Amino acid sequence: MATPEDTPEARRARQAVAAVLRAVRADGRSALTAPEGKLVADAYGITTPGEGLAEDVDEAVALADRFGGPVVLKIVSPDILHKSEAGGVEVGLTGAADVRAAFHRIVASVRRHDPGARIEGVQVQQMLPPGQEVIVGAVTDPTFGKVVAFGLGGVLVEVLKDVTFRLAPVSADEADSMLDSVRAAQVLRGVRGAPAVDRRALAEQIRRVSRLVTDFPEMAEVDLNPVIATPEGAPAADIRIILAEGTAVVRPKFSRAEILASMNRLMRPRSVAVIGASEEIGKIGNSVMRNLVDGGFAGDIHPVNPKADDILGRKAYRSVLDVPGDVDVAVFAIPARFVAAALREVGRKGIPTAVLIPSGFAETGEQALQDEVVAVAQEFGIRVLGPNIYGYYSPWQDLCATFCTPYDVKGPVALSSQSGGIGMAILGFARTTGTGVSAIVGLGNKSDVDEDDLLVYFGEDEHTACIAMHLEDLKDGRAFVEAARETVKKKPIVVLKAGRTEAGARAAGSHTGALAGDDKVYDDILRQAGVIRAPGLKDMLEYARALPVLPTPRGDNVVIITGAGGSGVLLSDACVDNGLTLMDIPPDLDAAFMRHIPPFGAAGNPIDITGGEPPATYEATIRLALHDPRVHALVLGYWHTIVTPPMVFAELTARVVAEARAAGIDKPVVASLAGDTEVERAAAHLFAHGVVAYPYSTEEPVAALGAKYRWARAAGLLD
Amino acid sequence: MATPEDTPEARRARQAVAAVLRAVRADGRSALTAPEGKLVADAYGITTPGEGLAEDVDEAVALADRFGGPVVLKIVSPDILHKSEAGGVEVGLTGAADVRAAFHRIVASVRRHDPGARIEGVQVQQMLPPGQEVIVGAVTDPTFGKVVAFGLGGVLVEVLKDVTFRLAPVSADEADSMLDSVRAAQVLRGVRGAPAVDRRALAEQIRRVSRLVTDFPEMAEVDLNPVIATPEGAPAADIRIILAEGTAVVRPKFSRAEILASMNRLMRPRSVAVIGASEEIGKIGNSVMRNLVDGGFAGDIHPVNPKADDILGRKAYRSVLDVPGDVDVAVFAIPARFVAAALREVGRKGIPTAVLIPSGFAETGEQALQDEVVAVAQEFGIRVLGPNIYGYYSPWQDLCATFCTPYDVKGPVALSSQSGGIGMAILGFARTTGTGVSAIVGLGNKSDVDEDDLLVYFGEDEHTACIAMHLEDLKDGRAFVEAARETVKKKPIVVLKAGRTEAGARAAGSHTGALAGDDKVYDDILRQAGVIRAPGLKDMLEYARALPVLPTPRGDNVVIITGAGGSGVLLSDACVDNGLTLMDIPPDLDAAFMRHIPPFGAAGNPIDITGGEPPATYEATIRLALHDPRVHALVLGYWHTIVTPPMVFAELTARVVAEARAAGIDKPVVASLAGDTEVERAAAHLFAHGVVAYPYSTEEPVAALGAKYRWARAAGLLD
Repeated sequence: MATPEDTPEARRARQAVAAVLRAVRADGRSALTAPEGKLVADAYGITTPGEGLAEDVDEAVALADRFGGPVVLKIVSPDILHKSEAGGVEVGLTGAADVRAAFHRIVASVRRHDPGARIEGVQVQQMLPPGQEVIVGAVTDPTFGKVVAFGLGGVLVEVLKDVTFRLAPVSADEADSMLDSVRAAQVLRGVRGAPAVDRRALAEQIRRVSRLVTDFPEMAEVDLNPVIATPEGAPAADIRIILAEGTAVVRPKFSRAEILASMNRLMRPRSVAVIGASEEIGKIGNSVMRNLVDGGFAGDIHPVNPKADDILGRKAYRSVLDVPGDVDVAVFAIPARFVAAALREVGRKGIPTAVLIPSGFAETGEQALQDEVVAVAQEFGIRVLGPNIYGYYSPWQDLCATFCTPYDVKGPVALSSQSGGIGMAILGFARTTGTGVSAIVGLGNKSDVDEDDLLVYFGEDEHTACIAMHLEDLKDGRAFVEAARETVKKKPIVVLKAGRTEAGARAAGSHTGALAGDDKVYDDILRQAGVIRAPGLKDMLEYARALPVLPTPRGDNVVIITGAGGSGVLLSDACVDNGLTLMDIPPDLDAAFMRHIPPFGAAGNPIDITGGEPPATYEATIRLALHDPRVHALVLGYWHTIVTPPMVFAELTARVVAEARAAGIDKPVVASLAGDTEVERAAAHLFAHGVVAYPYSTEEPVAALGAKYRWARAAGLLD
Repeated sequence: MATPEDTPEARRARQAVAAVLRAVRADGRSALTAPEGKLVADAYGITTPGEGLAEDVDEAVALADRFGGPVVLKIVSPDILHKSEAGGVEVGLTGAADVRAAFHRIVASVRRHDPGARIEGVQVQQMLPPGQEVIVGAVTDPTFGKVVAFGLGGVLVEVLKDVTFRLAPVSADEADSMLDSVRAAQVLRGVRGAPAVDRRALAEQIRRVSRLVTDFPEMAEVDLNPVIATPEGAPAADIRIILAEGTAVVRPKFSRAEILASMNRLMRPRSVAVIGASEEIGKIGNSVMRNLVDGGFAGDIHPVNPKADDILGRKAYRSVLDVPGDVDVAVFAIPARFVAAALREVGRKGIPTAVLIPSGFAETGEQALQDEVVAVAQEFGIRVLGPNIYGYYSPWQDLCATFCTPYDVKGPVALSSQSGGIGMAILGFARTTGTGVSAIVGLGNKSDVDEDDLLVYFGEDEHTACIAMHLEDLKDGRAFVEAARETVKKKPIVVLKAGRTEAGARAAGSHTGALAGDDKVYDDILRQAGVIRAPGLKDMLEYARALPVLPTPRGDNVVIITGAGGSGVLLSDACVDNGLTLMDIPPDLDAAFMRHIPPFGAAGNPIDITGGEPPATYEATIRLALHDPRVHALVLGYWHTIVTPPMVFAELTARVVAEARAAGIDKPVVASLAGDTEVERAAAHLFAHGVVAYPYSTEEPVAALGAKYRWARAAGLLD
């Protein structure tokens, strides 16, 4: 949460609004009236039409003069309910004479209508010019808290749901970016002969609304609807403010240093206790022990079991309190109902982290059991992973604290999943693709440790180059965004957000009791945080595998070199789908390419070297593209021929790329391999040598490159 | 092309329009004036505002009375250029008195303005009420010919490109479907308190425009813009008609019977000649011979080579004219420049089909060489496949007429590709997945045989259950749609249209010189034809593999049964993404499921049987869903556990599905397998036993089911 501005003006504004809100609460209301809304708007500099009460005709003329354009006059009388019927309203008045005449007509008409009416004066209101109707608002999202929304009015918002969201408060730049984030953004720049609207004024309205709800969390909803955007400004024709009932629950917050300290104990322990360790095959406490021992964990492993003297050759303890020396992690493999008591002993032993594998907590409706465990953890300052998880892997520590099969391929990818099934899919995929992993963590019910803790740790972890997370909800969207923003500067974060769709969200509800918000809010805010959102499970896994392999691009110019014209077309499609820019090849480079390819080949981009070419043509063109500093990334389309067989292509490409890298040229290269089954081995060879390659697919290699570009852009490494 | 309507009224309409067009042409113009447009509109019953010339005030009143609502009066004088300046226009006139007074005012004012002006009368024009602006139009697409377009006016069309297209002419139903095919369709049904528009009137405008351009192909463009749609009607405020310069090239047309006869000779030949057969390894003529011989083709194989006596143990002929007996197919493996002469001999020999493998024709700029070949083919009535192709496979005939590696897995999938590289990817994918194939055909430059010919043949071919085509352009979009519509009734067609995006379309241009049209036109019209469009190469391949495995669903109710709640959420997301309907489980069925699953499992849909369940739970719930007639399709989410290992799940599922099928219950079942690498074998087992299953993916199984549903819907097999 941003700190409030501390200028005298800002303080006065807050005091003014606070006074209005006190009055509303005192009145037992939760909705502000229009005049109250106007007071709030004025305090925060939210532009609304000028208005004022004129007690006589000269005041009316003066007010109209101050507003400039045409005005509306309305009678102000506690006795006149229907102003128009009484002849008490006139619109479109311009100039002193007009205003003067209308003032007199109104007063005369109202007197005729009701001679006894008390007349307090005439309200003079600036008449808004015709313009583009837009909506600016703020809502309180269950995941992200205060969120500002912007959309184009009418059909665009109501039918096409063309709205964009950001965490409040927004900076001026962020507010401006919102204007470009709606599909119909072009409208604001002027279409069909209409002039562009005043973007700064519009962005300013968004920024001020975001400031208002940030300063006053009790405002559940603020709506400026419509805002009339014109080349001259963007006043809100109407402001609506609703106050919340009750107050939000505050989750315990840890500092970055505290998180790092706990996560380091968890992920790099020197000593682990297994509560419920067992000799009995088939028991979770046995699988966990076996995986810890067989996985080769170099630290101490202490089985805890009141009924055993030793387990898998390790001395067993009746209670964790009997374990000698410091213990970093207590892994629980006992039934849910015994967890709280055992956790208390863990706390008394001073163990800082607990891994709660057991299920049978909130996910099965046993919320009370979970609350009890959380209370114990808070009492003793224990950080808790789970419950309801498969455990976790920390391969660089040879640590498999899980009941699943061991996994020991060390590498740069850190993965987490909220669900056990997805965790198993991560494991199988990683094993079959040989993906090197720095961590696989089950988060389950996330009673405490969640994605933001992991992001902080993985962000600092020197083994981790890419983070991929499956999640169904976020317990604290703001903490996640905060952690993500820090981490994205250093390494890419891929998120598979399940429950994207309405039907999906319903399933999430029944699964974890998670409050799945509107997916559009998630989508906009995850993007705002610089996170790469994977459209599906397989995509998340493939991105996680590919991103650490690819160097970071230094610019936007993507070049396609293909032996198959047909692949070239599909690769171009994929580039556009992934927001990549096909380089406009300069004439000299074009000519250079043409020197290597047959006269009927096509230069331009894609560069079609044609199908029957020998290895030398692939090699020369790839080298040329790698060594030209204007080219920033390479997409290769290989076509299986007897002239250049798959492994020949793979080896030459790997060699040319390695030579370039040795020469300090480190550009991302991806490849699509079209051919018979030998291309599978060729793709694996390329992947192992720093080129992201897929057989039978033009989409996957380009999607991986697209993900890398999205991250590079979010991290500010492009342009 | 639909035949023109043959009623006296239709004939009169055509004559009236023809007369207008003659006059326009005679005048040396290609654009119609507003009055000419009005004449055309009137002839075809396209509603425009009523208007007429009143020579006196009584006529003006009578006209206004006939139109009903408010009218506009405009002076008609050859001497008055700026009517408004002369006081010659009055708007919003209602009732006889108003019209009468305005008529006199106009005439008097014009007389004052220019006493010498000749006044021919006053035009009385119906004033259109405010309403929803929409656009109805027709354009001439290079691929599809006359195409009607419909969109909502203003920003929606111009900024969001919210337009939909259909082949002209459209039926009333098709026209109506267009109203629902724009994103903002809801607007027409009434939003924000607005009433619904007169859909029938609007659809009728579309239908009539489509009829008009069908009857008059020389109309390059017709635009009704805007049409003002209200609850009372949908008159066009403006009609704009542009005539084309020149006439379109007409491709030779073959009847269905002719196509089937040729394609049968091509795909099921008894005798094949290889022009340019060779003993020399590395030559295409050698590869083709070898593949034909090694592939086990049971018919005659005749090598033709002037310099050899026998090749691969077969007697060789100096000329194809020397080959004894009938020959069905001549496969060419000689350089491009020799093809025309050799084709002439093929023609003289009476061989009905030629397969032109050589490249070096239009794709390398040698259009003249290709034109010459096409001319020879037309002279002799030879149907030509290619040139610039890898050849073709017809596995059920053990026929590999290609220079690529042989492929012999017989099965139900027919594939074609425009590009050789994609053909190789098809081959590799099919081999690695063990996909059974009925044909793989390279189309290359499509100088003659193209997708519509193949669709006609595959539609009738009893071995083919699913057709998948990669294409970059269509030579004749209408012929394709016609063939597709017939074939889709019987079997699904999957199309990968390359050059979807602007960048992609540019690449297509440089590759084949194909005129890639606007992708939205392709998208709408392929959908109109009932074709399943694959978003990418891998998707096309996976759909082709999966669709024949899946039975056709009989209704919309999809049920998800999952052991992993996390998969359930992702599977739900995927269902929504693919337009599938998650069944609202009736209480009795819900209760029935709950009897098999733990109390903390979730019934509803997804049905979460929870993670630790034994095989019996999977079995009982899958059986229950299969045997309940209200359930139409099943999505399974498996979670790898020691209690139910992957192969145990695969075998039990295959068994339960087989039992149901034996009992006449034939529902599509797909499965997502989350687990360690053993799930790969389990997925393969399931696929081989009629369940479309994927490891590490929740998207792919549901996408396959979605494709099957799209086909079933297009084929009219649902509801």
